[in-house]
Amino acid sequence: MMKSNNIPEVALPVCIDKIAPELSLDPEDWESFRACAHVALDDAIEFVKTARQRSVWQPVPERVRNALTGPLPHAGQDLNEVYEEFKNSILPYSTGNTHPRFFGWVHGTGLASGILAEMLAAAMNANCGGRDHGAIYVERAVLGWSKELFGFPDSASGLLVSGTSIANLIALTVARNARATGNMRANGIRDYPRRLVAYASTEVHDCLVKAMELLGLGAASLRKIPSNSRFQIDLRALRDRIADDRALDFEPFCILGTAGTVNTGAFDDLDELAKLCAAEKIWFHVDGAFGGLCALSADLKPRLKGIERADSIAFDFHKWMHVPYDAGCVLIRHADLHRAAFLMRPPYLGELPRGLAGGADWPCDFGPELSRGFRALKVWFAIKHHGTTRFGQLIEQNCAQARYLAEQIAHQPELELLAPVSLNIVCFRYRTSGRDDKALDDLNAELVQDLHESGIAAPSTTNVRGHLAIRVNITNHRSRRADFEVLLSAVLAAGRRRAASST
Amino acid sequence: MMKSNNIPEVALPVCIDKIAPELSLDPEDWESFRACAHVALDDAIEFVKTARQRSVWQPVPERVRNALTGPLPHAGQDLNEVYEEFKNSILPYSTGNTHPRFFGWVHGTGLASGILAEMLAAAMNANCGGRDHGAIYVERAVLGWSKELFGFPDSASGLLVSGTSIANLIALTVARNARATGNMRANGIRDYPRRLVAYASTEVHDCLVKAMELLGLGAASLRKIPSNSRFQIDLRALRDRIADDRALDFEPFCILGTAGTVNTGAFDDLDELAKLCAAEKIWFHVDGAFGGLCALSADLKPRLKGIERADSIAFDFHKWMHVPYDAGCVLIRHADLHRAAFLMRPPYLGELPRGLAGGADWPCDFGPELSRGFRALKVWFAIKHHGTTRFGQLIEQNCAQARYLAEQIAHQPELELLAPVSLNIVCFRYRTSGRDDKALDDLNAELVQDLHESGIAAPSTTNVRGHLAIRVNITNHRSRRADFEVLLSAVLAAGRRRAASST
Repeated sequence: MMKSNNIPEVALPVCIDKIAPELSLDPEDWESFRACAHVALDDAIEFVKTARQRSVWQPVPERVRNALTGPLPHAGQDLNEVYEEFKNSILPYSTGNTHPRFFGWVHGTGLASGILAEMLAAAMNANCGGRDHGAIYVERAVLGWSKELFGFPDSASGLLVSGTSIANLIALTVARNARATGNMRANGIRDYPRRLVAYASTEVHDCLVKAMELLGLGAASLRKIPSNSRFQIDLRALRDRIADDRALDFEPFCILGTAGTVNTGAFDDLDELAKLCAAEKIWFHVDGAFGGLCALSADLKPRLKGIERADSIAFDFHKWMHVPYDAGCVLIRHADLHRAAFLMRPPYLGELPRGLAGGADWPCDFGPELSRGFRALKVWFAIKHHGTTRFGQLIEQNCAQARYLAEQIAHQPELELLAPVSLNIVCFRYRTSGRDDKALDDLNAELVQDLHESGIAAPSTTNVRGHLAIRVNITNHRSRRADFEVLLSAVLAAGRRRAASST
Repeated sequence: MMKSNNIPEVALPVCIDKIAPELSLDPEDWESFRACAHVALDDAIEFVKTARQRSVWQPVPERVRNALTGPLPHAGQDLNEVYEEFKNSILPYSTGNTHPRFFGWVHGTGLASGILAEMLAAAMNANCGGRDHGAIYVERAVLGWSKELFGFPDSASGLLVSGTSIANLIALTVARNARATGNMRANGIRDYPRRLVAYASTEVHDCLVKAMELLGLGAASLRKIPSNSRFQIDLRALRDRIADDRALDFEPFCILGTAGTVNTGAFDDLDELAKLCAAEKIWFHVDGAFGGLCALSADLKPRLKGIERADSIAFDFHKWMHVPYDAGCVLIRHADLHRAAFLMRPPYLGELPRGLAGGADWPCDFGPELSRGFRALKVWFAIKHHGTTRFGQLIEQNCAQARYLAEQIAHQPELELLAPVSLNIVCFRYRTSGRDDKALDDLNAELVQDLHESGIAAPSTTNVRGHLAIRVNITNHRSRRADFEVLLSAVLAAGRRRAASST
């Protein structure tokens, strides 16, 4: 026991370690627990190591779905049995994003080191809402690195969150409240004299629309500005809309720039947006969910020019840094405004000068969560172990793979690129003569489902300028060039089969 | 590879597994990775097993804090080195809530089985925002069990979240939007004809105030109703306030009942609140952050009478079920209203009838998060392995320990109970003659800091009816009766020392 400087040695009851234990949830037999855990660890490692040998995806069988609908178990069950059920009924039916031919949505691949970090975090069981303990300093370290990455000042604040959806929500809350600190929190937005409006391109991620709804501002108060041929926000249209809104006595409070749109990977002109926001005195937020991490690559970093002048940035570690789900981050340039939007210390959270209840700036002062797991640890492990240079190389590799895939598509008359490839996302479709757009949409949607069910590859779908697209997102550190050849072979085979069967 | 029913066998390039690998983030040497991971696992298990042998808490040394402020690392580092740094600089400085004499705030103790669950979840790396894969069915299983526990219908909906703060936020969002579905999302609350107001006792948890602020309703729109001598909401005062508000053309939309207040563990009369809400046509939400799980104990369940008629319930698995941080849950009786508050499916999230993009009701349809880790797995492991009966016994044991502690306090003239012990929380203070309340407040605050620094025990502080209290919260499956004797000895020793030194 640590020596106390403050209170005299307390005589422990001599019996304390001999007393008959009351109930606990600890293993009765630690050695048997240890054996089970080591078996599970080997299986976990094998699962990651052999990702390529499996199907990308397979459906959850009826048998498993039924087994998972049993009633609430009153009696406990041996851990080995529970583990066996997991191994047989859950582990085989993963999302698929550990596989080198998973190209759906924007998923990270995961990291072997994440297995360590998560088991260690579970053992520590830190609650990172606040107080003064090691995990809090690890989170600060990760936030410090993030500020450095984006050229934010040391004085900026931030928070690790589940992902960019929550990061965006927090940033928008600060931007909203910054308009009327104090009053806004007490009285809500109803008393605010003008309607607050925000701006983004039509390519904006819908989580920002959801954030506007949640904050009570309403989806319609997010003005969707047309995008140009490169899927960037049209700056002239944006300026016009701001002027129109001001003329109508609306109050522009935030411009949302995107670094890496979800449909095509486009970057808004952040430099111009930063200038515009400064001139108009509007909060400048950047949604860099996956594209933000292009700051890790010297080649790609110029696309982010202007982000260093943003008022806030949201991005994910679980996408292009492959940290296990979930881990995102929000940075706010103005710590005072950030704190003013969220700080609330009721008596039972009173900060004390010394001891566990000490430590300045608890994370709960900067967001809506009071209980928070130790997600900083897996990010810390990932950055320390791999280093930023390697992450940057992998990001560049994924972009090179996207260009390679686009070239292959360009050489195939049955395939059609639907958007320029500006980063790591390739939108294309299978086409065949004598079909209208609706029929092609249907064919391509079926084709993607065929691919999933085949287990060969998993792209997703989206809509690009009115066309249903096969969307190949490459945030995958396991993909090799040959995997894209496999993908295209499978697309062509499925497309031909679909075309033959339905004409 | 899984046999495909839908597309012909695709000829893979023969070279695929022989091709020179491009870069990846996988270990170059899997055996060395495996060795490191097994060492880490043994250390993790040892950490949990030997919790009692350590100090409850110790400050993070200067040396460690400095080491954690280094610049963003460009080069990677051997995993063993990173792990060593973790072991020496982070692991020893935990929050302390794995220790049998941690009694601060409302923290869970953690579970050894959580180590397995979290390492396995990290290996699977599931994104539980949506799609059709095993993790989604595990979450549904956990939600199904939760509905059963609280007597909610199968048709209810729910979501696992980081904790009750977010669960409360989601429930309040649904309650707010249910007033004007569609319009509220599009137009915000500004156009709503009346000011929406909610009700809770003065003992309400502040995360609900934060939720009111976030939603744009404003903290002042949460009416704080006085509590009675048992710290329950005063029903007459509540009825009067509702009537007053209606008379002033405010619109009561939600009553927030608490099952287990954070200061004293009081339960509002949920049965009466349910009746009142039905009569007044007001949404009835129950914040059962830790007290909700009293449903696991036959003895304690009667206190929750009425919760089965709530419109929504929020509670945590990481508190009295000890699942590693973080894991909470929201249940909503009306799945249609829940979906109407959050469903948003842009084209790139299009649901398809078959394949990975299939599966009805994605979790992202029910909350603000699109990327979501697989936190259902640790809950599933905990419930399967321990069973509800055991959890109920442990909850009863903690309540018995609280009564035991209160008895000991009652017999000590230097100690004073500050609130009746109705559950698992004991609020008391050290007192000494000739001091006014302010001096006693200061003395007790110093005393708690002394205890933290001693490493012997970690209660927290709060304010009860104007007095600073030493607050002992018992949600700890490792505590034994003797631990409370140690606590009191330490409190008395520290109190006497403080009293002697400053008079």
